[in-house]
Amino acid sequence: MQAAATEHLHWFAANGATGLLDPIAPGVCPGSDTSHLALLGYDPEAVYTGRGPFEAAGVGIDMKPGDVAFRANWATVDLGWRIMDRRAGRIREGTDRLAASLNTRVEDIDVLCRAGTEHRAALVFRGPGLDPRVTDTDPHADRARVLPAKALHPDAEKTARILNEFQKRAHGIMVSHDVNRERVGASRPPANMILTRGAGVFPHISMFGAKYELSAAAIAGVALIKGICRSVGLELIDVPGATGGLDSDFAAKARAAVEALGTRDFVFVSVKAPDLCGHDGKSMEKVEVLERIDKQMFGYLHGHLPADAILAVTGDHSTPCERKDHSGDPVPLLVFGEGVRSDDTRAFDEVSAMRGGLGRLRGRDLMPLVLDLADRSAKYGA
Amino acid sequence: MQAAATEHLHWFAANGATGLLDPIAPGVCPGSDTSHLALLGYDPEAVYTGRGPFEAAGVGIDMKPGDVAFRANWATVDLGWRIMDRRAGRIREGTDRLAASLNTRVEDIDVLCRAGTEHRAALVFRGPGLDPRVTDTDPHADRARVLPAKALHPDAEKTARILNEFQKRAHGIMVSHDVNRERVGASRPPANMILTRGAGVFPHISMFGAKYELSAAAIAGVALIKGICRSVGLELIDVPGATGGLDSDFAAKARAAVEALGTRDFVFVSVKAPDLCGHDGKSMEKVEVLERIDKQMFGYLHGHLPADAILAVTGDHSTPCERKDHSGDPVPLLVFGEGVRSDDTRAFDEVSAMRGGLGRLRGRDLMPLVLDLADRSAKYGA
Repeated sequence: MQAAATEHLHWFAANGATGLLDPIAPGVCPGSDTSHLALLGYDPEAVYTGRGPFEAAGVGIDMKPGDVAFRANWATVDLGWRIMDRRAGRIREGTDRLAASLNTRVEDIDVLCRAGTEHRAALVFRGPGLDPRVTDTDPHADRARVLPAKALHPDAEKTARILNEFQKRAHGIMVSHDVNRERVGASRPPANMILTRGAGVFPHISMFGAKYELSAAAIAGVALIKGICRSVGLELIDVPGATGGLDSDFAAKARAAVEALGTRDFVFVSVKAPDLCGHDGKSMEKVEVLERIDKQMFGYLHGHLPADAILAVTGDHSTPCERKDHSGDPVPLLVFGEGVRSDDTRAFDEVSAMRGGLGRLRGRDLMPLVLDLADRSAKYGA
Repeated sequence: MQAAATEHLHWFAANGATGLLDPIAPGVCPGSDTSHLALLGYDPEAVYTGRGPFEAAGVGIDMKPGDVAFRANWATVDLGWRIMDRRAGRIREGTDRLAASLNTRVEDIDVLCRAGTEHRAALVFRGPGLDPRVTDTDPHADRARVLPAKALHPDAEKTARILNEFQKRAHGIMVSHDVNRERVGASRPPANMILTRGAGVFPHISMFGAKYELSAAAIAGVALIKGICRSVGLELIDVPGATGGLDSDFAAKARAAVEALGTRDFVFVSVKAPDLCGHDGKSMEKVEVLERIDKQMFGYLHGHLPADAILAVTGDHSTPCERKDHSGDPVPLLVFGEGVRSDDTRAFDEVSAMRGGLGRLRGRDLMPLVLDLADRSAKYGA
């Protein structure tokens, strides 16, 4: 962020307060799911059973008790199930049709598959005797072989068996699928395998609106984040053009957020693009998209944020380009609005935030902080 | 540290990041044992049962379940068991022979005694029906009388009785011991009493190497710290000249640490000398030894630290000369290495660290922090 000329964020920083935020705890490298739960005020230790259920919720599958859900990737494998591309060339077209072709039954288990954005999908197993304690079939690396699912507990042996059988069957269906014939014809990597990870059951979570006595909504492009928002009961506002990619319509998201604040107490807005650049190690693209987000989103907010609104800006984790993955570094936090005690920072970036007046907070401190700034905190004691 | 010209530490601070660290929590005055446990990533509330077991481990006694261990001091008492010197003139010579003479049996309990450095020793009781809930016989002050051990719980009455009987017998043995005849002849305070404190049983601790998936070693001169390292499974590297005193060979410790990093992932190095000066209230000696440590240890590290190493420098507690004992003040923390987000502090001392970019952390945050900086953190979530 130091490299990006984000004049509107700098303005909010200069007129608000900044600090560092550890989404989970200092040095702990967060996943996007555990971190979003913490930022929304939940204890991941208590409510997080795996990524799968949130992915399933994000693509619109309503889970039932006993279901086991997985995050899935469309991938390209060779004849020996060696992975050529874990994201099948970031496939976009035809994934709905691919997913529909995989809705099947293995033994007495119904398999539900639904596509998310690009290479992302969710898979839900429904039926008797399932258990989420199985290993990932996704080896998390190109050029590795697809892993067989293994039971981590005797109760999960059936689930592992069903998963392995499903992958064999799915491969057969996908290899000859029209979507892939078209892709191969166009010299693009076919989505001929589905990789699974993050098995979990649907967690018991208190609803956000009731927990904080807020009417609350969310705007997000990525299935996992949508799923977390849906799972905690945030109303999802659909914004055309909000793709969760670098091409997302940031201005439209900002306009939709301000509009939503006309009728709601709380709006959560997720932006995925800088994280994608971090995972791909593309530092210049990261700077460019940060500047675009600043101009299109915070420029709009600068002129249109309701006078009584509290604005909080932070990240769910760092994704340093040099690591191409999340890190446990703290993220900068900015709060702006009436009643915020302004500090003397003049910029919004990782190093300026080190000197910020908010000091170093944790993800779970954020909701109490903004509720209090919005004059909505309940007194603890008398 | 503000008074010390520590150019190499300042260089590391200028090129790394600093902050404040509360070993346990803000304002909590830590013992060296609880603090080291926290710095190594353990919860003292869960694993700390008393100082005794770590002292025993530090002097090489392998404890068994049911044993009760004590930290012990060689002390000088008068005829009425009033303490003339709690450290028997920081006795150095002959303590092994003194300890050997105290290996005895009281009722059905075997007593094992072993000397540590200077006035320090450890005592282990082995046999049926022991319980660590007994009071210290060490009054922790010169000119006070040796205290009788009292049971803090009915189950510990036998242990208190054995301890009181042992001290009587030990006094008799020590009064006439050759070592003390020599000391009295040389006008030095005799070690004619053994004072006990910190009774505890051996705790259940997960091993450091398995916990963090690191091959790990430690370099320390003092028995208590050695004992903690041994107890968590750190391999102790013996460095000739590393005495744990003001005369310790700091350069040799630094060389041994760098050498150890050639074959290990993690090396912990303990330096005791500044704490000794604090306990003795000798501020000028503290400045002098800090400068010597800077030159001999950090000067060497400055030139020889492997390029991919993460260096973390901190204390287990403050020992202000004006208090002559530990305090609950936070200690400065410095991290240096590739991937560390450098802040704008240019010096390594207690007050500069207040403005450091790391903010204020706790002892138990340190291991997650350095693991993440070393690209060794596991992602929590997805």
